[in-house]
Order: sequence, then C-alpha cells, then structure tokens
Amino acid sequence: MRFSAAYVDNVLAPDYRFTAKHLYTELLDSMTAHVKTVGRLPAVTDDPEAGAAVERLLGALADLRGTELPPQEDDIPDAYFAVNRLLEDKLGAEDVSWLRTGLSRNDLDMTVYKLAARRRNLELQQSLLDLRSAVQQQAGRHTDTVLIAETHHQPGQPTSVAHYLLGIDGLLARDLARVRAAYGRLDSCPLGAAALAGSSHPLDRHYTAALLGFSEPVANTLDAVSASDWQTDAVQSAASVALNMSRFTHDLLRWASDGSYRLGDGLVQGSSIMPQKRNPVSLEHARTRFSRVLGSGQQVMFSGHNIPYTDLNDFGPDIQGALRQQHSQLQAGLELLTACVEDGEFDRGVLQDAASRTDTTATELADELVRSHGVSFQEAHALVAAAVAHCRSRGVALPELNAEDLVALGGPTLTEAQLREALDPASFIARRKGYGGPAPEVVVAQLNSAQTELNARKEDFSHISSTLTRALHALRVPGKEEK
Amino acid sequence: MRFSAAYVDNVLAPDYRFTAKHLYTELLDSMTAHVKTVGRLPAVTDDPEAGAAVERLLGALADLRGTELPPQEDDIPDAYFAVNRLLEDKLGAEDVSWLRTGLSRNDLDMTVYKLAARRRNLELQQSLLDLRSAVQQQAGRHTDTVLIAETHHQPGQPTSVAHYLLGIDGLLARDLARVRAAYGRLDSCPLGAAALAGSSHPLDRHYTAALLGFSEPVANTLDAVSASDWQTDAVQSAASVALNMSRFTHDLLRWASDGSYRLGDGLVQGSSIMPQKRNPVSLEHARTRFSRVLGSGQQVMFSGHNIPYTDLNDFGPDIQGALRQQHSQLQAGLELLTACVEDGEFDRGVLQDAASRTDTTATELADELVRSHGVSFQEAHALVAAAVAHCRSRGVALPELNAEDLVALGGPTLTEAQLREALDPASFIARRKGYGGPAPEVVVAQLNSAQTELNARKEDFSHISSTLTRALHALRVPGKEEK
Amino acid sequence: MRFSAAYVDNVLAPDYRFTAKHLYTELLDSMTAHVKTVGRLPAVTDDPEAGAAVERLLGALADLRGTELPPQEDDIPDAYFAVNRLLEDKLGAEDVSWLRTGLSRNDLDMTVYKLAARRRNLELQQSLLDLRSAVQQQAGRHTDTVLIAETHHQPGQPTSVAHYLLGIDGLLARDLARVRAAYGRLDSCPLGAAALAGSSHPLDRHYTAALLGFSEPVANTLDAVSASDWQTDAVQSAASVALNMSRFTHDLLRWASDGSYRLGDGLVQGSSIMPQKRNPVSLEHARTRFSRVLGSGQQVMFSGHNIPYTDLNDFGPDIQGALRQQHSQLQAGLELLTACVEDGEFDRGVLQDAASRTDTTATELADELVRSHGVSFQEAHALVAAAVAHCRSRGVALPELNAEDLVALGGPTLTEAQLREALDPASFIARRKGYGGPAPEVVVAQLNSAQTELNARKEDFSHISSTLTRALHALRVPGKEEK
Amino acid sequence: MRFSAAYVDNVLAPDYRFTAKHLYTELLDSMTAHVKTVGRLPAVTDDPEAGAAVERLLGALADLRGTELPPQEDDIPDAYFAVNRLLEDKLGAEDVSWLRTGLSRNDLDMTVYKLAARRRNLELQQSLLDLRSAVQQQAGRHTDTVLIAETHHQPGQPTSVAHYLLGIDGLLARDLARVRAAYGRLDSCPLGAAALAGSSHPLDRHYTAALLGFSEPVANTLDAVSASDWQTDAVQSAASVALNMSRFTHDLLRWASDGSYRLGDGLVQGSSIMPQKRNPVSLEHARTRFSRVLGSGQQVMFSGHNIPYTDLNDFGPDIQGALRQQHSQLQAGLELLTACVEDGEFDRGVLQDAASRTDTTATELADELVRSHGVSFQEAHALVAAAVAHCRSRGVALPELNAEDLVALGGPTLTEAQLREALDPASFIARRKGYGGPAPEVVVAQLNSAQTELNARKEDFSHISSTLTRALHALRVPGKEEK
Repeated sequence: MRFSAAYVDNVLAPDYRFTAKHLYTELLDSMTAHVKTVGRLPAVTDDPEAGAAVERLLGALADLRGTELPPQEDDIPDAYFAVNRLLEDKLGAEDVSWLRTGLSRNDLDMTVYKLAARRRNLELQQSLLDLRSAVQQQAGRHTDTVLIAETHHQPGQPTSVAHYLLGIDGLLARDLARVRAAYGRLDSCPLGAAALAGSSHPLDRHYTAALLGFSEPVANTLDAVSASDWQTDAVQSAASVALNMSRFTHDLLRWASDGSYRLGDGLVQGSSIMPQKRNPVSLEHARTRFSRVLGSGQQVMFSGHNIPYTDLNDFGPDIQGALRQQHSQLQAGLELLTACVEDGEFDRGVLQDAASRTDTTATELADELVRSHGVSFQEAHALVAAAVAHCRSRGVALPELNAEDLVALGGPTLTEAQLREALDPASFIARRKGYGGPAPEVVVAQLNSAQTELNARKEDFSHISSTLTRALHALRVPGKEEK
Repeated sequence: MRFSAAYVDNVLAPDYRFTAKHLYTELLDSMTAHVKTVGRLPAVTDDPEAGAAVERLLGALADLRGTELPPQEDDIPDAYFAVNRLLEDKLGAEDVSWLRTGLSRNDLDMTVYKLAARRRNLELQQSLLDLRSAVQQQAGRHTDTVLIAETHHQPGQPTSVAHYLLGIDGLLARDLARVRAAYGRLDSCPLGAAALAGSSHPLDRHYTAALLGFSEPVANTLDAVSASDWQTDAVQSAASVALNMSRFTHDLLRWASDGSYRLGDGLVQGSSIMPQKRNPVSLEHARTRFSRVLGSGQQVMFSGHNIPYTDLNDFGPDIQGALRQQHSQLQAGLELLTACVEDGEFDRGVLQDAASRTDTTATELADELVRSHGVSFQEAHALVAAAVAHCRSRGVALPELNAEDLVALGGPTLTEAQLREALDPASFIARRKGYGGPAPEVVVAQLNSAQTELNARKEDFSHISSTLTRALHALRVPGKEEK
Repeated sequence: MRFSAAYVDNVLAPDYRFTAKHLYTELLDSMTAHVKTVGRLPAVTDDPEAGAAVERLLGALADLRGTELPPQEDDIPDAYFAVNRLLEDKLGAEDVSWLRTGLSRNDLDMTVYKLAARRRNLELQQSLLDLRSAVQQQAGRHTDTVLIAETHHQPGQPTSVAHYLLGIDGLLARDLARVRAAYGRLDSCPLGAAALAGSSHPLDRHYTAALLGFSEPVANTLDAVSASDWQTDAVQSAASVALNMSRFTHDLLRWASDGSYRLGDGLVQGSSIMPQKRNPVSLEHARTRFSRVLGSGQQVMFSGHNIPYTDLNDFGPDIQGALRQQHSQLQAGLELLTACVEDGEFDRGVLQDAASRTDTTATELADELVRSHGVSFQEAHALVAAAVAHCRSRGVALPELNAEDLVALGGPTLTEAQLREALDPASFIARRKGYGGPAPEVVVAQLNSAQTELNARKEDFSHISSTLTRALHALRVPGKEEK
Repeated sequence: MRFSAAYVDNVLAPDYRFTAKHLYTELLDSMTAHVKTVGRLPAVTDDPEAGAAVERLLGALADLRGTELPPQEDDIPDAYFAVNRLLEDKLGAEDVSWLRTGLSRNDLDMTVYKLAARRRNLELQQSLLDLRSAVQQQAGRHTDTVLIAETHHQPGQPTSVAHYLLGIDGLLARDLARVRAAYGRLDSCPLGAAALAGSSHPLDRHYTAALLGFSEPVANTLDAVSASDWQTDAVQSAASVALNMSRFTHDLLRWASDGSYRLGDGLVQGSSIMPQKRNPVSLEHARTRFSRVLGSGQQVMFSGHNIPYTDLNDFGPDIQGALRQQHSQLQAGLELLTACVEDGEFDRGVLQDAASRTDTTATELADELVRSHGVSFQEAHALVAAAVAHCRSRGVALPELNAEDLVALGGPTLTEAQLREALDPASFIARRKGYGGPAPEVVVAQLNSAQTELNARKEDFSHISSTLTRALHALRVPGKEEK
C-alpha cells in the first residue's frame, strides 16, 4: 500500500480487522439494501441487461454471507474496497458499478454503524427486561420481609425488602424508557444520503429504509451522515443504568458481606484455607463494570466535541470500538448483577434479628403517643428521646422498653400490647399504608402494577424484535421478500 | 452553634446561603402544599381548633412570601429550621407542629430540588425553542444560497445554507425531545414519602402533587427520596445539547472568520488600532460555555457513583450547586448562539464566490457523462479526473473547463450549456431532489415540515407552562384555589 | 455599551464581577510589575519627564490597593479597561500610555491567572501538610491498635491502625509531591510576552519575573500566553487527591458507623428524637466534595480540547471560575477530613473485640505448624481448614480453638501458649516485622521516617512561601524594594 | 468449574485471556523474583534439600519462557493457578509450595501490573522523545519562516514557524517531565507485601526489588497492594499529552487544509476522481485518538472512586484493560502525529504570501511612529487606524501603504525604506528580540537550549532503560546474575 506505516498500523489495519470481526454482516446488509434500491431505478428497470447485472450483484453479495472477509491486501484501504474487489473478481467491474451508483462510503458507513447500534440497543433492552424480571420475582418473595433502610450510614427506618426492590425497579423502568426512546431516535435510515447531499439518481429511500427494518429514512441527508446524537444517546443511557446500578450493587455487596443476602455458590469465591470465606466477587466485578461504563462513554463525548458538523471520522470508524466496548461492559455488569439477583436470597432471620436491635421505631412510638394518648407533639418527642436514652443505659434496644419505664419517665400508661406494637418494626411497616408506602398490601399493589408495566414493555420489545427479524431475514435470504 | 468550624464553614453556611438565594420560593411552595394536605387529615377536619391552627400556619407561610430568609443564626443548621423558627416566633410551637406532621426533611428537600429542576427544564425547553425558531428563520432566507460543505477539512460537495441549517435543526429537535422526555420523568411528586417509608398519617399524596402542579405522586416512597436519575437526565440532556452545539458553533466560527457569515456589531469585539478586526467573540464564548457544560455535568455522575441507594446528601444539598451551574452555563451558551443566529447573516456573494473556486461538482459531471452521453462509469471517472488535472495545470477551477478541452481529453461533445450546467454548484444542488436532499423545493418542504413540528412543540410547551403557572398561582395566593 | 445584551449579560458582566471579586490584587500586582519594568527602559531612564510619569503611575496603582473596583460602566468591557480609566481620570492619558507600552491583555491576563493558580497551589500544599500531620499524629497514638483490614468486603488480615494510616500517608506524600511538581511548572512568568510575540521594546523579563516572585520568565513568548498545561496540572493533582481521599473517607465513614471510630461532637449531626444518633455527616459531606472535584475538573479538560494553540479565551477568562471552584471544593473536602482525623479517635476496645471474632489468623496458624511442628505445607492448610470448620460448627471464632481439638483433628500437640499466640491477632502483627510490615517496631520506624519526610516538606513549603511573601510585599509597598 | 456461567463468561475467562496475552512475561518475572528471594530464607539456605527444590522451581519457571499459557481449564480460576498447575505437574506439589511461601495473589498481581505500567511508561517516554526530536528538527528548518499566528480566529501577529514549534516543544517538555515523574512513583516494588500485612517469613524485599529492576520496595505493605495512584498518574499524564497535542493537531490540520503545510503522500488519502484531493486523514485520526485518550482515562477515575482502600479488584484485574487501551490510543496518536511532523513541510511561499495579505504589522507601524518620529502614543494609533481604513477602501492590505498616503492622512514623512520595514512581517519579527521572542537569533538560542535539554532527557532515558534491561535479562537467563 502506498500509505505510510504509521497510518496503516494505527488506522487502516485495526479498522479493517474491527469491521471484519464485528460489522461484516451489517456491511453486507447495507450493500444489499442499496443494490436492491438501485434495481428499482428507471435505468435498471428499463434495461434488461442492467436488471440482470443487478441480479448477479445481489447473488454475489448473498454468496458472501457466511464467509469471512479475507485478510487485508496491501492496496486495499478498507472493508468497503475489499468487498468491491471480491465482487469485481467474480463479476467484473461493470456489474459492480451498479453498487457504486449513488452510494458513498459516508452513507454506507453510517448505516452500518446505526445497524450495529440498533442491535446493541435491543440487547440492552433485553438485559434490562431480564433484570427487572429477576428483581420483581425477588420482591414477590419478600413483601413482608423487614429491612432496616439506612440513612447517613446509620439504621434509618424499617421497610420491607420488596419495598426496597420496587424502588430499584422504578429506576430500571425509567432507564428502560430511556433506552427505548433512544431506539426511536435510531430508527431512521441514512442510506441514500450519499456523501451528504443525496444523489441525482432517483433512489427510493423509503424502500431502502424498509428493507433494513427502519421506520423511515433520515429526513435530511446532511443530518443522515453528520449527526452523532444517536451515539450520545447510547452512551448516556448506558451511563444512567450504570450509575443507578452502582448504587444497587453497593447495597447488595454490603448485605452479602454481613449475611443478610446469600449469594449462590457459583457467584462467590472462597479461600483454600478458610472455608467460611464467601467473597461476593460477582458483585465486586459488577461494580467495576459499571464504573468503567461511566468512564468509557466519555470517549464519545470528547470525540464529538469542537469538531465540524460535517467531519465524519471522529464518530465514524474511530469511535465504533468505544461504543462496542461500553456496551460490552454494561452487558457484563448487568449479567453479573442479574445472576446475583436470580441466584441469591435475602435471609429473613438475619434481617429480622438486625431490625430488632435498632431504635428505628422511635418515631412511631412518638406518633402513637400523640395519636392515641393525648400527648403533645413536643412532649412526645422528649419522652421518646428519654426512653431511648434509658434503654441505651441498660444496654438494650428500644423495642425492649417496658411500659413501667415509660410511666417512670413521665409518660402515659400503655398496655404491653400497645407498646409492643408501637415498637415492632413489622407494625411500623404495616401502619404505613399511604400511596407508595411499605405496608404489605400496598407493596403487593405496587408489585402488581410494576409487573403489568413490565409485561407491556416485554410485548413492545417482542414486537420490534420480531419486526426486525422478519425484515432482515427477507433481506438476507434471496427471493424471500416476494413470498 | 455546637458544630465545628470546618463543618459550619464548608457545609452548613454555604448551603444556607444557597437555599436562601436560589430555593426559598420552592421551599415555601412545598411547605404550603404539605400543610394544605395536613389540613385534610381527619385529625384536622374533625377538630375546629386544629383547623384554625392549620389556617394560621398557611397564613404565616403566605406572609413569608416576598421576604428574604434572615441571616443564619448560630443554632440553626439549615433553612428548614430557620423557617420553623420564624413560624414558631409568630405562632408558637403548637401550631407549627402541624407542619412537621408526617413531614421529613428528606421528602421536603427532594420536592424542593425537583421543583427547581422542573423550572430549569422549562427554561431549557424555552431556549431550545428560541434557537430553533432562529435557525429556521435563517434557513428560510437561504433555501437557495450555495454552501460548499467540507469533508475531511476540504471542500466536499455543494449544498445550501438552508439544507445545512435544517440538519442542525434536526439535532435540536431531537435534543428538545430529550429534554421533554426528561420533563416527563420529573413530573411526579416526592412529598408524603417522609423519611423514606411514608407516614402513618393518611396524607393524600395525589392532592399534594396536584397542588404543586405535578401529574402524580412518585409511586414508591423509597424511590421518591432516593432516586437521582432525574438529575442524571438533566445533566445528560444538557450535555447532548452542548456537544451538538459545539459542532454548530465550530462551523459558525469558521464562517464568521472567513467572511461567509457576518455577525452583528454587538456580537463582535474589535481592536482600537485595527478597525477591520471583527473578532467573533460571542461565538468563542459560546464554545467555552458548551465545553464547561460537558465537564460540569460529570460532578453529578461522580456524586451518585458507588453510594448506597438510601444516601441522600450526595445528590441532595451537595449537588444542587452543580446542577444550577451546568444549567446556567448551557443557558448562557444558547443565548449567545441564538443571538449569533438571529443577529447575523450569511453572505451569498462570498459563498457563491467560494463555491465557484472549488472542483466539488466533479462527481456530477461524471454522472452526466454516464447518464446522457453513453460513457461507461469507469471511463467517465477517468475522464473527469483528467479534466480536473487539466484545469489545475491551467490554474483554474473545474467550473471553467471548456467543452473543447473535454473533447481533447477524449470525451464526448457537450454543448456549452450542458457543460456549464453540469459544473454549476446551483445545478448540482437542483438535481438532488430525492427525499431529504438539498434541491430548493425539497428543502422548502423540509422547512415546512420542521416548522409544523416546531409549532407543535411550542403548543405543548405553552400547555405545560400555563398549567404549572395556574397551579402555583393558586398555591401561592391564599383563597385563590377555591374560586 | 455597544455590545448586545446576550454578550454583556453572559460574558462581560460576570467576568467583570469575577475579576473584581477574586483577581483584583493579582491584576494590580501584574500591572505594577510591568510598569516598574517599563521604568527601566532606556526611553524612560534617559528622560526625566518619562521617569516622573512612571513614578506617578506607580503611585496611582499603589493608591488603588485596598479599594474595590468600581461597578462596571457601560462602555468598559473589562477590568483592565476599568483600571485604565481610573488611572487616566487621575493622571491623564499620557502618563497611562506607559502602562500600555509593550503590554497586551494576553500576557497580563495569563500572569494574573498564573498568580492566582500559584496562590491556590500553595493553599493546597498547606492543606495536605495539615492533613498529613493529623494522620501521622493519629497513627502515633495507635502503633499497636489492632485493626482487621478487609479484603473483598470480608475480614482479611490483622494489621494496626498506624500501619493503615501510614498507607494513607504514603498516598498523601505522593499527592503532595505532585502538587509540588505542579508548582515548579507554575513558577515562570508570562509578562513581557505581549500579544504572543513579545515586544520590540527591550523589556527586562527576568526583572519582571523576579518582582512577582517567579523564578524565571517563560522561555518562549508563545508558550507564555498559549499554554494551558499548568491549569491541567492543577486539575489533575486535585483529582488525584480527591480520588485517594474518597477511599480513606469511605473507610472512616464505615468505621464511624460501626463505632470503631468516634468523631467529635461538632462533626456529627443527631436527631431531636434519637439521642443515640450520631450521623457522621462531616465525612458524608467530605465524600461529596471529593466527588465534585473529580467532575468539575473535567470542565478544564473539555475547554482545552480541540482548540487552536493560540486561542486564549477557553482557558483564559472562561475557565477561571472552574479552576477556583474545583479548588474550593477540594479545600472544603480536605478541611472536613482533617477535622475528622484531628477530632476523632479509634476505639481500641471495639477494634480488639471485632478482631477476636474473626478467623483472620488462620494463615498464621498454618505457618506456625509448618515452621515449628514439621507439618508439610499442604497438610497444614488442610488441618487449619478443618479447625476453622470445627470452630464454626461450635459457633465460635478460630481464636477459641482448643489444643485438644487440634489433636483430635489429626494435628500435632501445641501448648496452650503456643496455640494462643498463633491465633492472637496482636501476635500475628508482631511476627510481621519485614520491611514495611505492621509489627509495632517496624511501624514506629515507618512513622519516624514519614515524620522526617514531612518535616522536610514543611521546610520547603515555608521557604517558598516566605520568598513569595517577601517579593509581593516589596512590590506592593512602594520604596520597600530598595531597602 | 463450579462458578456460574455469568461469572466465568464475564470475569474469569476474559481475565485469563488478557493475562495470557499481555501479562504472562511479567507474571513469570514476578514469580521468579519471588522464588529467588525465598531461596535466601534460612529455611532454604539451611536445608540442602530445600535449596534443591528451589533450584528445580527456578528451572521450571525458566522453561516456561517462550511458551504460551495453555487454554484455561475448567477448574482453574486464573493464570496464577494455571502456572501453579504447570509447575506441579512437572515437579509435584512439595516443590511448588516454596513458590507459595509468603506470596499472595495480592502482591503478585500488583507487581505484575506495576511492571506492565513501567513498560508502558517507558514506551510513552520514547514516543515523546521522538516527537520532540521531530518538532525540533522541523523548527530548525524554519527559524525565519514567517507565520501569522491567529488570535480570536483572525490573523493576529507575525511570528516564525520555529517560534511556534518551540512553544509546542515547551508543552512536550513539560509533559515528558510529568511522565518521568510518574516513572519515579512507579519505581518501587510491591512484592513481599503478601496479602497486605507482609509475611512472617524474613523475605528480603530489597533483594526482590533489585531483581525486578526497581529502586526499592514499597515502604508500607498496605500501600504496596492498595495504592492506585500510580495508575492515576499514568492516566493523567496521558490526558495531559492528549489535550496539548489536540491543539497542535488542530493547527496542523488547518495548515494542511489551506496548503501552508504539506503532508507526505503516505499520510493523505485522495479520491479516485479528484486528483487534487489530499485529505489530511492522518491528522484527523490523530485527533480522534487524543479525544479517546481523554475519555478512556475516566474509566480509571471512576473505578477508584468511593471504594474501600483495601479493595483490590477495581484497580487490579478489572482496570488493566483500560490502562492498556488508553496507552495504545495515545501511542497511536503520537505515532501518527510524529509521522506528520517528520514527513511534512511548511510551505514558505504560501505562508509568506498569506502574511503579506494581512494587516498584522499595524501595531509595529504605530510603535515606529512613536519611537522614531515623535508622534504621541494616542496619535500614532489613530493615524494607523486611518491608514488601515484607507488601504481597505483601496482593496489592499496595510503592507502596500504608500508614504504619501500616510502624509495625506496627517502623518510624518517616512522614507520608503522606513515604511516598508515597519510594515514588513519579517521585520516585525526581527525587532522582537527580547527573551523568548521570535527574532531569528533569539529563536536559534531557544532551539539550542531546547536541544540541549532534550539530549539530557535522552541520556536519562537511555540510563533507566538499560538498567532495567540488564536487571530483567539477569532475572530471565538463569545463572546470568552471578557473572
């Protein structure tokens, strides 16, 4: 090749390998769709010879399916030219000129990249659906399992495992909506934009778009080849997922460490000498994947920064590796986390035991005194503060407060049952039955609602996936379309 | 105050000042909505004395409108306690206890922050609508103004200014959709979630939400106080806008520098000695604002990273400054850019002149030879390459090619008119009339479609803005609601 | 002013306020140094009238000390012109023309910014020295306090508090070295570079540099006004400190939560109702400051990205706020953290108690069997694993293993003393006396070495601080220099 | 393997492949150094049988050199265990137990990672030295080639190509110093730290360090395995280089586009149809590499954020890919840029021509009037402004001003020679001979100084490289050390 070694080694060769390994299917898909569209040009439909040439071209492209791109030759700068040569070797240059009609590497490349982005988007949707299913199933088993939620790194208030998990599911539902909205912005086809100004040949861009399973062509040809915002979308929705899941992972890691959450044996790593060691390594590694997602996405933000609108390398070939990498990191993190939610269990006994050792029901006792025993708000709080101090001086937690002690501190007389209930974490939870609260029946309603919403998402996903699958199958299997 | 100086100076004091300066209205709004909701509790509706106390409290809150929060007192950690003291000084502690009923600083703070985020979101929507209007108007004046779009930092192909600007409008339309979608995820009210588990008082959270102009309460109380994804949304949509606009700014800056685009006198800065100097400073400073937006948003991403789901400081008080800052930077950048689009003009003469000095119509000449003169694709390209080389050797651009020269190079005979048209940038554009292309009539159609879409966005914006305004007015002006 | 509102409101006005508030001293310093240098030009030394004018100018500049910059006037774009006007109003334009001789806003601004960066660098050095002192003092009190270091979020191995803290001190020592190296790269003066090509007047740039306390002038005038790497230095060393300290803060926060570390009363925040609540808020807020440092620095990285080498706004006026902000965030984080180290104490009892409940000495027991009882490596490990399992089945930790049980498991006979020592965390530590290990005498040696190194750093700091103070005092107090 | 598929597929398998491909040499080096150190333990030197076992172990390790790590077996979690198995299969478990003596995967892994980081650091030093050489050589050819430096995207002032390049060399010199300082912080050996508390065996850590070519062991064993700041160092110095070089690349790209700078044929990419097309693709791709460096480094910053000091995965195995990736991106960018500086040339004619069409010498004419013709500063500036306006009205640039025109505008009479010189860019440059200025003799002095400094850096580099090479050769070739 006439190019300098620095250019070949650092640009052309790695790009060729990347395309051959990760984008060859999309390249053939895009070329096929373009040639089919060329086949509808008057110059072809009016000329049987041209029509035959286009058919030969489609056949040759179909024959390349299932093969690998050959190693890069010296005088071939990229995969596009490599395929051209393969076709020319088989059919001659004249036939292949129909491929080049109205086609530029600009619109071809952008289409290839967008197809890959669409595939990754669907994979991510699938992963989020899977994780939500796992979270909701875990929640379904723990609608009345007490969990002391911490605030300020201290025991805060009693809630339930299911209530906590439905909070996480809320995050995931919104992240899924982000990814789905990004899909919508991906769902338009650049092909036919040529270099940037479209072609003077009357190519039917709506037909091309439909062949590739897109809803429509991009409505402005400059936008088609120059916009990078669908890549930013991917990077940002990935970062949102990673940020949210880093928090969930943090909590699971803590609970796995203190025994509140028991990971399956295949997800922990032990020590040859210390059989009790159950290092929650899967969660540790999920955390690092999420951290890397947050960083690696910045490659895309820097690449598109302060460049001309019509520069195409920065978010074209030169950023595809970063997009693929961030996606893989996120998928790895989500797979690990999903496995940890599916193959793990909250330990009710440990959680209940921990709950009974905290003073987290203090606010409820004060509310009880106000509500049912005529104590003023200010007095009630002072009284409960004194009760907590009293228990601490005895070395016990507030749930072990005696009714007599309360009287001795100047409070009203409660029955043992009244006191026990006021101080019981489960009762604390049961009384919080306002909209969105942790009371079991309220949580069950939330869960039902979340399941319904998830099912709707699954149906939507199934619909777009199968639509795509049909379109691509028709494109790839010659003759299929007509049937 | 009993707190250490390090804590007061670095945390409590700056937070108090920030709330007093930027969030006091939202604080009073949230407190008022909560007290009104408390006013519907059975304990209040069943007890005339309690009802009167709640009315006094609402009156006292209304009286605080238009005043400033007093300077922080030594024993007052934050604005919430400062307002409590103001109210207690006026009404006594008993009345004020109704404010505290079922309220936590957690749900109160999150509501305040979400109200501020909602306000910023609307301001950003407004800015994007304004910029789109300016871009579309500029486009409307240049549907047939030739612009040579560069690729690889070299003249690429002819297109029109309007075609370019409609590409930019496409970016902006999608960014506006992102911001609007983020609004939807902001549109639910945390109040009533208390510390995290809701309250045992039967507070009507749907009523509270409606008072503050939210569509609904957050459906899970833990989600209400713990989720930070609506902040990530804000940061990410801002970054998307900034990234896209950094590219538009780059191009305008270049055109302002070479005279293709003339900024208004109020937007350039000169030199006392060199009257011809017209430094495009407004665009330079727009660029830096966009750069800072991209960076400052990372504060939010780091803050929420690897923290427990139930930690509230990191994206509560401690991140509000970053959110406000990024928003201000983006608004400043957009205002500068909008001013530069409104008060600036493309120079047709300069652009036309530049176009005629390029060889960017070479591909069209080749297409013409193929289409109308029976030359094969391969031959046509070789011929045009020779013609370009010939012109270069004569020191002229391709548009000055003679018909005889083409024949001398072995080509067919074209009439002068045929040749001129094939080499004319305007003709190049006119022939590209496929969907999304630059041909004037196609661009006019794109523009019409973009204007229609923009008008729909403006109506939507007007609807949500006026709905909010009505709700907040009713909340802030006592007695208004009933009318 | 003739500038458009968008430019005034978003650029000129906020820049003016920022300079007036944060950079006025540096502006006067730089102007004074320049005028003094002009005073040594032949045109001045050869002309008594010119010499007198320069003296009047220096006097007028000195008179501005202690005053505030007046509010921005309509026709004044920036602080430089505002000072010019103040001087002209007092002395007339002719005198002031000496200020402008060979001066550009480019080199003036860069000098002002570098002086501010130098001041911040010194403040950061001071903060790091303070924190290291606190860490070393805390370490000095705990050279034999047992701490179970966790790995994989599980008890890992016994070490001492001092050993842990000296690890942290190692991080801080290297961060201090980074900041100190950045100081070196700050220590050259841009003045005299004029717009970028220097002046045709023979200004003595070495003299100017000395007046401002710089070691030398920047050796290339384009480098003087165009380089931004000393700003990157600041941002990156701040990020390094923040990242490292986020980890230390994480650990302290955990220990403050479980009672191993007790923060002073002024650093925790309680609850009116739960007197036992000691929320470690100072550490929480330190964490958020470090998070924000990591993000806010990215503003500088984006600003300098993909811009021409000779563009000056991006890292000139438009980035100073970001630099100041990141510095303030870091200082706040370090002050909070230092307060938490100074006013806090590790609880030996709690730590010792926790240590005795772990199996973390298992490896040492195995080593003991190999070393002193002729058991092979493989057998020893199997034996200890069995012993751990045995203890777990009895519900006790390994330190409570009986000698008989070991024999029953097939092991050799150890005396009670041998067994107790092998299983004692303190003994585990004492035996690790290799270079860098936790054995008390080794840790004391490390501490001595760290103290010596710290003292050397303090002397260096004191030296550069006092040198600067002297230079600036001489500059600011007229006539001082000659004495 | 007993691990779950999610853990194997996403963690164990890719880590194994990464280590096998990129870190195997370092793994063998570290193991060999450890076994040699074990060979000096009393338990070995006192026992001939043990000594023989250690020798066999060293022999077996040496035999693995040049081989590849076998594919991962099902029950083997990582490369460390894989090597253990290879050794055990050859020698039996007893011999291999000497390898495990006092060794943990913690200190072993950190040593391996640090050795790889050291190698990368040296590669980067080499790249920076190469680029500096190229820049200085290019500068040497252009000490008097006029270049109009732009400010505010407008022609600013005349300087020379060499002056500009020496500004860039200043950036590179400081970046090299950063990388070299980072090397110093890398130059200490973690081995012997075991899990984190060192070993109870008296391992000579100074000996181990020397074997691996480190200056010393890390002085605190917890610091040895827990610190990640040497990774931050790598990431940050890479980012600094990338940021600075993005600016240099921006300028070269502009000059390559307008013909001021002509890239070698192997570095541009053309078009089959437009022979004049010389797309400066090498520079475009260099830019994207630098952009990606800035983003990919953020992976490391996020990974270390908000994690415990003693967590090892986040910046252990899970971050090595990011470090390697960022390094490769930077090396690619630097290789491309270096090629573009080596195989490219500034075009004096184009630059001179461009210079003569600007008014950038206006300030010098004013200075001349003040200095030599008794015109006051204010008047001179007004006069030159009028002259510029006059020339513009005639459609010529200021250098074409006539002496009579100046008089007609009210100015003094200059000889033609005086006027031509005052308006000549070369003369403008020649008069700027202050320290650091662009006058040819001053630039030559700067260049000499820069060359001297660069030679000193090369010697330092050569010294540390050859020291390392000797140490590693001795380690890898048995028996070599004794000679």
